[in-house]
Amino acid sequence: MSDPLTSEPWSPAEFEARLRKIGEERYHSRHPFHRLLHEGKLTQGQVQAWVLNRYYYQSRIPMKDAALMSQVEDPEFRREWIRRIHDHDGTEGGIDRWLILAEGVGLDPDYVRSTEGVLPATRFAVDAYVRFVRDKSLLEAVASSLTELFAPDLHKARIAALLENYAFANDQTLAYFRKRLTQAPRDVAFGLAFVQREARTREKQEAALAALRFKTDVLWAQLDALYFAYVEPGLVPPGAFVPKTE
Amino acid sequence: MSDPLTSEPWSPAEFEARLRKIGEERYHSRHPFHRLLHEGKLTQGQVQAWVLNRYYYQSRIPMKDAALMSQVEDPEFRREWIRRIHDHDGTEGGIDRWLILAEGVGLDPDYVRSTEGVLPATRFAVDAYVRFVRDKSLLEAVASSLTELFAPDLHKARIAALLENYAFANDQTLAYFRKRLTQAPRDVAFGLAFVQREARTREKQEAALAALRFKTDVLWAQLDALYFAYVEPGLVPPGAFVPKTE
Repeated sequence: MSDPLTSEPWSPAEFEARLRKIGEERYHSRHPFHRLLHEGKLTQGQVQAWVLNRYYYQSRIPMKDAALMSQVEDPEFRREWIRRIHDHDGTEGGIDRWLILAEGVGLDPDYVRSTEGVLPATRFAVDAYVRFVRDKSLLEAVASSLTELFAPDLHKARIAALLENYAFANDQTLAYFRKRLTQAPRDVAFGLAFVQREARTREKQEAALAALRFKTDVLWAQLDALYFAYVEPGLVPPGAFVPKTE
Repeated sequence: MSDPLTSEPWSPAEFEARLRKIGEERYHSRHPFHRLLHEGKLTQGQVQAWVLNRYYYQSRIPMKDAALMSQVEDPEFRREWIRRIHDHDGTEGGIDRWLILAEGVGLDPDYVRSTEGVLPATRFAVDAYVRFVRDKSLLEAVASSLTELFAPDLHKARIAALLENYAFANDQTLAYFRKRLTQAPRDVAFGLAFVQREARTREKQEAALAALRFKTDVLWAQLDALYFAYVEPGLVPPGAFVPKTE
């Protein structure tokens, strides 16, 4: 491998292609758990486990975005980024919408909100993400958000797949995903432009790529844990959610 | 002193009285630099130094509030606190208003925005505040914001004093302080209720008092540095703003 300290930076096009390649190879759309979900092969209990655990991720996203903003000296940048917090926290925001989905799949929203029953591995992965954004450089923090480059395709496929395969799926329960179809591209355009602008050396470009890979690990690890606990071998750790037998 | 681990918590009224006593004894309204300012005894260059250095504090407040929000798990709480960021960052927000004041006292807003010329001691104190909020408990972070209990009285006195004593003072240049007269009481009511609710042991009450004392130190230290550099002995450190001789 060439030395990032002495190598020329990649062109913007080449750099973006490398960012996108990470999505092709490592985004959680490729995870077996998502395949089962989209093919309609999960039981209601397994879908509940997914919704419950993913709620923990959703609930930490505004904290992650606040941690990111605490690093930002430029008011213009903060004015742009703060929308993300409103998108999640606002009335009919992302967290509310996720709770509607939770109710739709038969979970008690108060139980979900309590985050009791969440898999420890979910907490570890998600908390690691919040800490990463808090402690790493702003460039790396923003780069880690670029999984949004890959999210709209996944969400589009998911909406169609869930509508086809599950009784709980309807416009109301899937509103979270539909809303993200417009929010994510707007957000990612800003994030990508920032990363292109700031990563002007090969070393910084490599750091941005590593940050995006880290984020794909955070997402992937959550599905590994779900698969292990609720699909195969199906060993639910002590204290975690146990689906009712169907 | 009694042991905070074994002592009974103070009643809400007694606890609030102790918080308010910190303001009486340690709030920067009592600092000699503020007295000179309010008595019209500062030269334009000294006022400029105050405005320039205080801009650094203003510019970090939204970062401090984002750091605080990154600790908050409750969306309701975040929805309340996020207003503070808008109050500072928004169009005609606190930072804009402070820059209008800066222009009014004859400073170039771009120079102010660059934060070049800010006293190192200002940076150390302000950065310590942001770090405190980021690293301490949420209770301590919120408690440190309670200097807002004391701010409206200071701002009222300041508006009257500046109008009386300085040619630059008018409705436009003093808009920052006037706006804070309504914002601060709204904010502090929420903060005080939170601190009262969360500090249910003597140990936590003591931690909240210590956090508020810390914040008064942060404000006081900024005025010490201004006094030292621009009043007496008047030794401006290398690289810091030097007023034009008048």
